[in-house]
Amino acid sequence: MKTLIVHAHPEPASLNSSLKDLAVTTLESAGHEVQVSDLYAMKWKATVDADDYGPAASPRLKVAADSGRAFETGTLTPDVLAEQEKLLWADTVILQFPLWWYTMPAILKGWVDRVFTYRFAYGVGEHSDVRYGERYGEGTLAGRRALLSVTVGGPQAHYAARGINGPLDDLLFPIHHGILFYPGFEILPPFVVHGTDRLTDEDYPDVAKAWRQRLLALDSTDPIPFRPQNFGDYEIPSLHLKDGLEPAGRTGFGLHVRG
Amino acid sequence: MKTLIVHAHPEPASLNSSLKDLAVTTLESAGHEVQVSDLYAMKWKATVDADDYGPAASPRLKVAADSGRAFETGTLTPDVLAEQEKLLWADTVILQFPLWWYTMPAILKGWVDRVFTYRFAYGVGEHSDVRYGERYGEGTLAGRRALLSVTVGGPQAHYAARGINGPLDDLLFPIHHGILFYPGFEILPPFVVHGTDRLTDEDYPDVAKAWRQRLLALDSTDPIPFRPQNFGDYEIPSLHLKDGLEPAGRTGFGLHVRG
Repeated sequence: MKTLIVHAHPEPASLNSSLKDLAVTTLESAGHEVQVSDLYAMKWKATVDADDYGPAASPRLKVAADSGRAFETGTLTPDVLAEQEKLLWADTVILQFPLWWYTMPAILKGWVDRVFTYRFAYGVGEHSDVRYGERYGEGTLAGRRALLSVTVGGPQAHYAARGINGPLDDLLFPIHHGILFYPGFEILPPFVVHGTDRLTDEDYPDVAKAWRQRLLALDSTDPIPFRPQNFGDYEIPSLHLKDGLEPAGRTGFGLHVRG
Repeated sequence: MKTLIVHAHPEPASLNSSLKDLAVTTLESAGHEVQVSDLYAMKWKATVDADDYGPAASPRLKVAADSGRAFETGTLTPDVLAEQEKLLWADTVILQFPLWWYTMPAILKGWVDRVFTYRFAYGVGEHSDVRYGERYGEGTLAGRRALLSVTVGGPQAHYAARGINGPLDDLLFPIHHGILFYPGFEILPPFVVHGTDRLTDEDYPDVAKAWRQRLLALDSTDPIPFRPQNFGDYEIPSLHLKDGLEPAGRTGFGLHVRG
């Protein structure tokens, strides 16, 4: 495997950084290649602006069009180009982050906003009566797999089906499906550590053991069966899920998972 | 009304900036007071790090604890303090942003990550057998109202109940409920402009008219009836919604809306 780990925590001695380090050593010891984008260590620029697109930036900035022109003319900034190259090098991508306000930290969202440009991650492929671009299961990153490794401060119960925060699978859906499945990744089930507000040093060996087991089993882990867009499940161009495909009673984000 | 508009688009001539400007003139013309946090114009620092907490930062940074200590000792940075003061001044908060990758842009997430500190927006109130802190309907910002004004590139159909992107209400739930209802805001239904990828200058007057109408009716708009945490709907401390409270067949995020 060739694995890219994108890491988003400011503290090198944090649980997130320990899990990142453990992933590097575990995968390398098993003979795999690993690259790490440690966004805080890289002082990653988190905000999209005209500086990202150089001469391709319109006088009146248009983020989608201008990012696509910069991508196609090779004028994206070196930091963004390097991340796109790492994504194309990797067969497996791990995003390591703490859940802050029910989603990823700003620095990681800024990695997505800047690296996932038009023509690279969206605006890919042609539209016709039977296809609506290459997205949701097709696209530039098809054939690769992505995995979230997430630390969650609160207890698991609060993220259960009836928990007040909402089910964790639903909170992660916009990342799994909207950010990663969209440009083509297959999505492996997340590795989640709950209750980190009260985690002690004594708890860490169990967490580390579970993470090592997940890492060493990545090759044989089945992805979440999100429905690909252009293979019959959706009407085109409304992109409504066709009637009757889902199990009785399923609604919301869960509609977009098969079986 | 005293309204704070938090604006997150890099282009002053964008649709988002026009909607922000229109909100200012509409509200001020109606006799209301308005403050604007134009995050790009302010060059808002988007990433949480030890610099945010000054002398309150631990040698091994702990974001929650250190942000709470900085809040309590008055050592947060001036930019964060100013935003907290604006939030306490306002009775109404509008977040104006484009939906990028199914959530807010990084710069706005970074406003949340940095401004919504421990002891200010979370970690507020005592825990007992009948209360689990002051959150979800109680808290520092209780008595205030928040509204998202969101532009969405894709067509409305893709965000419908069976649309491939997932229902927009569910995509916005982590912001409405997890970020804004959590520290006490009541949440007004969002103002959404769909299909902005294909919007033309000729479409703008209709959008502007609808936005003006919403703005002038804010005082009389009913909030989304999210369930408050400590008033009997949830078991404590599991914070599971008690059985039988929801309409038949409702699941997922929708459980946390009454009626």
